[in-house]
Amino acid sequence: MEFSAEQIAELLGGEVEGDSQVSVSQLAKIEEGKTGSICFLSNKAYAKYIYDNNASIIIVNKDFYLEKAIKSSCTLVRVPDARLAFTKLVETYHQYTKKEPEISDNAFIDESAKIGINCSISAGVVIGANAKIGDNCVLHGGCQVLHGSSIGNNCVLQPNAVIGSDGFGFAPNSENDYQKIVHLGNVVLEDNVEIGANTTIDRATLGSTIIRKGVKLDNLIQVAHNVEIGENTVIASQTGIAGSTKIGKNCMIGGQVGIIGHLTIADGVKIAAQSGIGQNIENEGETMQGSPAFGIGEYKRSYVLFRRLPKLKQTIDRLENELKTLKEKF
Amino acid sequence: MEFSAEQIAELLGGEVEGDSQVSVSQLAKIEEGKTGSICFLSNKAYAKYIYDNNASIIIVNKDFYLEKAIKSSCTLVRVPDARLAFTKLVETYHQYTKKEPEISDNAFIDESAKIGINCSISAGVVIGANAKIGDNCVLHGGCQVLHGSSIGNNCVLQPNAVIGSDGFGFAPNSENDYQKIVHLGNVVLEDNVEIGANTTIDRATLGSTIIRKGVKLDNLIQVAHNVEIGENTVIASQTGIAGSTKIGKNCMIGGQVGIIGHLTIADGVKIAAQSGIGQNIENEGETMQGSPAFGIGEYKRSYVLFRRLPKLKQTIDRLENELKTLKEKF
Amino acid sequence: MEFSAEQIAELLGGEVEGDSQVSVSQLAKIEEGKTGSICFLSNKAYAKYIYDNNASIIIVNKDFYLEKAIKSSCTLVRVPDARLAFTKLVETYHQYTKKEPEISDNAFIDESAKIGINCSISAGVVIGANAKIGDNCVLHGGCQVLHGSSIGNNCVLQPNAVIGSDGFGFAPNSENDYQKIVHLGNVVLEDNVEIGANTTIDRATLGSTIIRKGVKLDNLIQVAHNVEIGENTVIASQTGIAGSTKIGKNCMIGGQVGIIGHLTIADGVKIAAQSGIGQNIENEGETMQGSPAFGIGEYKRSYVLFRRLPKLKQTIDRLENELKTLKEKF
Repeated sequence: MEFSAEQIAELLGGEVEGDSQVSVSQLAKIEEGKTGSICFLSNKAYAKYIYDNNASIIIVNKDFYLEKAIKSSCTLVRVPDARLAFTKLVETYHQYTKKEPEISDNAFIDESAKIGINCSISAGVVIGANAKIGDNCVLHGGCQVLHGSSIGNNCVLQPNAVIGSDGFGFAPNSENDYQKIVHLGNVVLEDNVEIGANTTIDRATLGSTIIRKGVKLDNLIQVAHNVEIGENTVIASQTGIAGSTKIGKNCMIGGQVGIIGHLTIADGVKIAAQSGIGQNIENEGETMQGSPAFGIGEYKRSYVLFRRLPKLKQTIDRLENELKTLKEKF
Repeated sequence: MEFSAEQIAELLGGEVEGDSQVSVSQLAKIEEGKTGSICFLSNKAYAKYIYDNNASIIIVNKDFYLEKAIKSSCTLVRVPDARLAFTKLVETYHQYTKKEPEISDNAFIDESAKIGINCSISAGVVIGANAKIGDNCVLHGGCQVLHGSSIGNNCVLQPNAVIGSDGFGFAPNSENDYQKIVHLGNVVLEDNVEIGANTTIDRATLGSTIIRKGVKLDNLIQVAHNVEIGENTVIASQTGIAGSTKIGKNCMIGGQVGIIGHLTIADGVKIAAQSGIGQNIENEGETMQGSPAFGIGEYKRSYVLFRRLPKLKQTIDRLENELKTLKEKF
Repeated sequence: MEFSAEQIAELLGGEVEGDSQVSVSQLAKIEEGKTGSICFLSNKAYAKYIYDNNASIIIVNKDFYLEKAIKSSCTLVRVPDARLAFTKLVETYHQYTKKEPEISDNAFIDESAKIGINCSISAGVVIGANAKIGDNCVLHGGCQVLHGSSIGNNCVLQPNAVIGSDGFGFAPNSENDYQKIVHLGNVVLEDNVEIGANTTIDRATLGSTIIRKGVKLDNLIQVAHNVEIGENTVIASQTGIAGSTKIGKNCMIGGQVGIIGHLTIADGVKIAAQSGIGQNIENEGETMQGSPAFGIGEYKRSYVLFRRLPKLKQTIDRLENELKTLKEKF
């Protein structure tokens, strides 16, 4: 699909400076402009990239001042806000190029599962008995949605995500081994949830593991049985949450964080990457760091001194010597 | 499937208090009782949930004393031990509702693979050449069991688990790049092993990567080539074990632990979450924490002082000043 | 397939000591030799294993001196370099036993995808629209190669690897929730790349997430959108790299490392396991440890003192007391 500079200027309410008939079929970053592509320049730190650029069209702010000539093959489209205009272009491009929702013949969907309208379900997806998938969902290849799982509207499951694996629960036997605890519960994803590639969400023992509306989980995250994650909370890659922990809404949790089981985390809490949470976090909006974690400001102060421990040790040794000398004097 | 209060009392050896004909089809937590469901109350801390509960049946201890009226829609079944009785109910429910073992037509099983009796193998499972699966195994969707893998009886592979991927071994070439080391070995899972969703177990270079009987691995765990994990050891999510390490039996290893290669870990060792193990652990039953880890008691003492480093620094600064003053006096 | 001692000696340029007609069909480690298998002994620390060994053939160095008799069932083949000879044998064995490249009928390959020659593609692999796979590639079961991905020659994707999942990008809305950012870019794997089991590589927002030639990624690694990893860099299991970070060539990165977004890591950098990288690393060849990481030597010095903090605290307390006593004297 190709668009001319003229068409783009019309779409974005901009003005063409150069060849209005030149056309593009690709969007690119300003650092990577090549023939047939369109870029944008908004941040002045990137202005240097405009002068030797092979892009066919570059979108710039209305008042952007060219300090020297650009390539003659390059046409500018001047708009009120280049970043916003480009975002609009991305969306338009995406609308044109995205595939119609389709359920692959090579998806394995149990007869008893209920699938909403306008869903895209790729080859290799497995959906178990009595699972429910809402409207406008996208399930990428290799996703496993196990029996009884309930997925809301507008959800996206990235490839190989697992919804509804058994919780990790075993009762010690008398014979020094373990018996598997039956997990009769399920997993519930509310609306507008995104689950990353190879992320795993275990079903509840009883009741539901619940991912509230608007939650976004990155790749390779572990969510254990009976966990609840509050609305619009965002969690980065490789974080793990142990069983029965409840996380508030609007939290932001970094990558590789570990949270032990049966905790309550307040709304709006932020947790730095690689932290370990071993206790409830009761204050809304708190920011934590460390393993075990405490307030991020305190953590940073302690860590600075951790780095300086060898120097601190020298000071202590010196004081010890000076004190010894002083004592010997008397 | 529905059960009346009368049937349940008979099954559990209990007594009905209320409508013996009311029936239920679901098990629920006491906090989440609703019409048609049955709950139990054992821990007194949860007694408050009984008085305004919509559950149709609640199982309580024989001598449980009602401090006020419960809802008229709610029937009690009194038993000697409410928790034990509910566990029996869960098992009974599970026996009635679980599916017959079945091998999906959409599982991809190499002709040379040998599968035992009473196995459940879901759609999307791939089993390679000469793999062996024992009796009563459950392989959930998307599991990959690669060629030559050997799986014992009563094993469970959660969705997308990988058994027998190549070990991560490369020999540096003269040309500053790497040549792949051929991995001719396999993976052996003994009986009663459970492998979590998206967990990966690499095949041995030569010989076998061995997971001994009764081992339970949570989700997203990495087990490298030639590792051996001893009987009934339990490992939590997102832990990684590097090549050729041998872990003893009855160990308990927390989540997000890292263990380097070629180590020996004694029987009964416990490792706290997020720890890093860089040396052999020779004493049975030891508990370790930290990265690198040492004894958990020592670690906790050091960490308390890490948190207090800013205060310690102040003390040192004050001592320095006082000493200076004292020295100037003489 | 069986080889006699005579054939093996000829292949390796060695000399038989014992029964030249004895034959073997398996390769084994010296600790695990059994009838019908061949082992090698190179490292003297393992010499003790030769004397009571059931292996049918053992390869030893030309000048290896037997301190006592070995089993009469065991034939030696003496060669100039036992380790090198065994590696040659492994390669030969692998050539004989490896399957012909084959594309499974149960792989789900979009019609528009282009596949090179001599590729092995297992059951359950999903390849999306307009994806390109080069020559001599191996894609194990459950791999997801999403639309537009580009894979070079001689690449190996271990089971359930994901290439081209959407980046984790969401723009905050006015309504306190998030809107998904469209990811129009792709993933590019150059030649000779190996991607581990259940590792995930997100597509770029615009442009490409790039894995340069010769890169080796272990299992369960997260590579976010627009990351670039330089030639022949090797990364161990469960490491995560956030968006737009550029890693140099010939780097060695340990397991469970976290690297935040928008960083630049110089060539030849080494990062210890479980480290957290929060800043650019500008010096080539530097080795880092800690979370946040700094130079490994400094880190080790600080960590030793972290372990000794309780003792340091005692020293400080003692100095404080002594100083107090001294001050009271005057």
